[in-house]
Amino acid sequence: MSGITRQLADFIATSRWNDVPQEVRHEGARAVLNWLGCAIAGCRDDTVERLLATLREFAGKPQATLLGRGERLDALSAACINGTASNRLDFDDTHLRTVIHPTVPVAAALLALAEHRPLTGAEFLHAFVLGIDAECRVGNAISPGHYEHGWHITATCGVLGAAVACGRALKIDAQRMGWALGIAATQASGLMATLGTMCKSYNMGHAARSGLASALLAANGYTSSERGLEAARGFLNVLAARSEPREITRELGLRWELMQNAYKPYPCGIVIHPVIDGCLDLRAAHRIDPVAVAKVEIAIPPLAEQLCGRKAPRDSLEGKLSLYHSAAVALLDGEAGVVQYTDARVTDPRVIAIRDRVVVSTDPALGNDQARVRISLASGVAHETFVERARGSLGRPLTDAELEAKFRSLASAELATREIDTLVEQCWSLERQPDAAVLARGSVAAGARAAESRCNSR
Amino acid sequence: MSGITRQLADFIATSRWNDVPQEVRHEGARAVLNWLGCAIAGCRDDTVERLLATLREFAGKPQATLLGRGERLDALSAACINGTASNRLDFDDTHLRTVIHPTVPVAAALLALAEHRPLTGAEFLHAFVLGIDAECRVGNAISPGHYEHGWHITATCGVLGAAVACGRALKIDAQRMGWALGIAATQASGLMATLGTMCKSYNMGHAARSGLASALLAANGYTSSERGLEAARGFLNVLAARSEPREITRELGLRWELMQNAYKPYPCGIVIHPVIDGCLDLRAAHRIDPVAVAKVEIAIPPLAEQLCGRKAPRDSLEGKLSLYHSAAVALLDGEAGVVQYTDARVTDPRVIAIRDRVVVSTDPALGNDQARVRISLASGVAHETFVERARGSLGRPLTDAELEAKFRSLASAELATREIDTLVEQCWSLERQPDAAVLARGSVAAGARAAESRCNSR
Repeated sequence: MSGITRQLADFIATSRWNDVPQEVRHEGARAVLNWLGCAIAGCRDDTVERLLATLREFAGKPQATLLGRGERLDALSAACINGTASNRLDFDDTHLRTVIHPTVPVAAALLALAEHRPLTGAEFLHAFVLGIDAECRVGNAISPGHYEHGWHITATCGVLGAAVACGRALKIDAQRMGWALGIAATQASGLMATLGTMCKSYNMGHAARSGLASALLAANGYTSSERGLEAARGFLNVLAARSEPREITRELGLRWELMQNAYKPYPCGIVIHPVIDGCLDLRAAHRIDPVAVAKVEIAIPPLAEQLCGRKAPRDSLEGKLSLYHSAAVALLDGEAGVVQYTDARVTDPRVIAIRDRVVVSTDPALGNDQARVRISLASGVAHETFVERARGSLGRPLTDAELEAKFRSLASAELATREIDTLVEQCWSLERQPDAAVLARGSVAAGARAAESRCNSR
Repeated sequence: MSGITRQLADFIATSRWNDVPQEVRHEGARAVLNWLGCAIAGCRDDTVERLLATLREFAGKPQATLLGRGERLDALSAACINGTASNRLDFDDTHLRTVIHPTVPVAAALLALAEHRPLTGAEFLHAFVLGIDAECRVGNAISPGHYEHGWHITATCGVLGAAVACGRALKIDAQRMGWALGIAATQASGLMATLGTMCKSYNMGHAARSGLASALLAANGYTSSERGLEAARGFLNVLAARSEPREITRELGLRWELMQNAYKPYPCGIVIHPVIDGCLDLRAAHRIDPVAVAKVEIAIPPLAEQLCGRKAPRDSLEGKLSLYHSAAVALLDGEAGVVQYTDARVTDPRVIAIRDRVVVSTDPALGNDQARVRISLASGVAHETFVERARGSLGRPLTDAELEAKFRSLASAELATREIDTLVEQCWSLERQPDAAVLARGSVAAGARAAESRCNSR
């Protein structure tokens, strides 16, 4: 009986596209659309500029596109930068059981590879779905202890997902897939201590890069442990106090973790979302004047307070992890979009004035997509609501139309409407596209693409 | 009172070369000489060839030299490949208290950087000594639990040492040094499950690359946690069940961990060394005919059995971690050098015949540099010895002359005697060299250098 690593590797290496149900394929397109919007809208953030300024000097040939921007670097560097950019806005997807943001590391690695070693849209989607599955199954096996212990689970599991997706795209056999998992496992890293700093999104970029490198090395016969996951001193035992290895292989090919994926309506920590829902609902229902708000009482589960209990965030990065800022800005602006999480908004005295009136308490009986919000006005009147299922949660998912609207809003930062129309269509029809790299090219405005092309031909 | 990370960062950023004692400077030269020999002799191993074949396609401008070989890649890729190559023979140094092999990740990153951003020999040595100190101090803080748990400690602590050395070389201030430590901490990775595979040495190369990237990012203002080591979800708490943070800052600048560094006389796991000493001593003292050996009884401490208990190694990589192969080959050949650990020797039936007569037992009373060896001959006669201090241990260190002889033997794989003479002289006088990169250039035979230069000018 072969071990868990080999069983997983066998499944990935031998999976057929016809075995992937239509609903899973469609969820793949949804995930890619959502991710691409995040990558485009995040592409000029300072976190990305500084990373590019650092890596450019060391980067190789123009093999892959920086999404939204148009510069072309070697595929490993592009994977790193696109991974970082697409997580920067905290607007990417979430596998709710593990709190993994699954698409970023997998798609950033795979699309960079697809520009260098052409893949059809179907090959891309197939590799993508398998990468997400492996990533989230390993996450299931070590949750919740691994994340609670302080591991940035999207990075630690993301490197595995990226390796699997890229290994599949490179058509490596099961033995090499096992090595790819072993090479990725030994590069698994990422500390929660970096949350609220630029380094948080870099963790994802680093995972994407390392995962792609793992697949490329394995394809070249680079050996690693063949039991990288389950070995006594392998991933599961070293990175988790307790693990349930069977989660990795149970119902392989029958149950697809991608179907447990959720898409955010707000660009901030997902545990904040029910609070924003509650504030927006109360504001609209009672036409609340933000200036008249005397007190905002919020009850949330303990995890939300742990992750997002920052009372006085200093900038955009910290604001995205602040229940206080999020509640305040939702009440003040009546929305919680990209604009509500800029440095300027986080330090705006009008936002801070309301933020200081927010009081948070924890209630272990609440689910992670639930919250109670009570708003007391200066007049003495109070309004209260219970959010049973946050928008965007599995019980109340964003529709295709809502996802498309989110994409259009995000992509408009770089692209004209006509360009967005084309890209949306290419995402929805990805399965039938002859070349998956069309997504990378289409993420860049025609003008920027032409400029980059002139630059490279010099 | 600032935290441990900041205290360490302050020390590194403000250290003066004049504060580094002469004996520490000399130990720096010894460590660099030993390391450079290992890098040269390991440079054409299959582990390196496959890594280069993979990375070359993605690598950037010719900024730094592949030691011994002469190809030039971008500094990050060169750091990765040289880090991998210099550990491949298991002949590099050891900080005995932690079993960290400290020089590989630090020197591989720093020398690659020095070719791209020139450093004097003194600046190089200063950054090197500080990097080793930070790396081993963090190792002290989490030993022995971290390593026992399954972490490849040279990689997990090596990325920190590389970041510190490169940050110092880039002359970043204390705040950015703190970020560099935070960026490195979140990239710390490496699983013991990879031992005995190509991936083992890649862990070091990956650490060197990631550490250099951390310093470059921090120099460009890339933020990370300022408490990357001691934060609740930082390096110490996440990667170790127990830690003693004060080990990191106690007697900073008064006690230098480089003085606890040892150099190997044999290219294999260091816990095997006393066994080899015992076999060689008995063989010489009693003129033992290997064919007449009926039984070899070895007593070693439990750690040695855990790490190197492989009874039937299949190749060079496994042979280097086998007490059985090592004892057999030492008895058969009367030496244990690079030649004794090739694939061919590990699978040689004559070696295997003796290997199968080796019996290992553990004795917790023995130190990690101790062993008892008893050899019974077919005639019924038996000889026994107790190795109290292995050659190359701190109690019986290799002399400068022995280190130089080791270097000459290793470097002769690529260089002519005249070239070796020059390089040895440059290592010993590194403190007075105007350009540290002379070591990288000097590691390559004149002919190979010329060929690479023609190639790059095309």
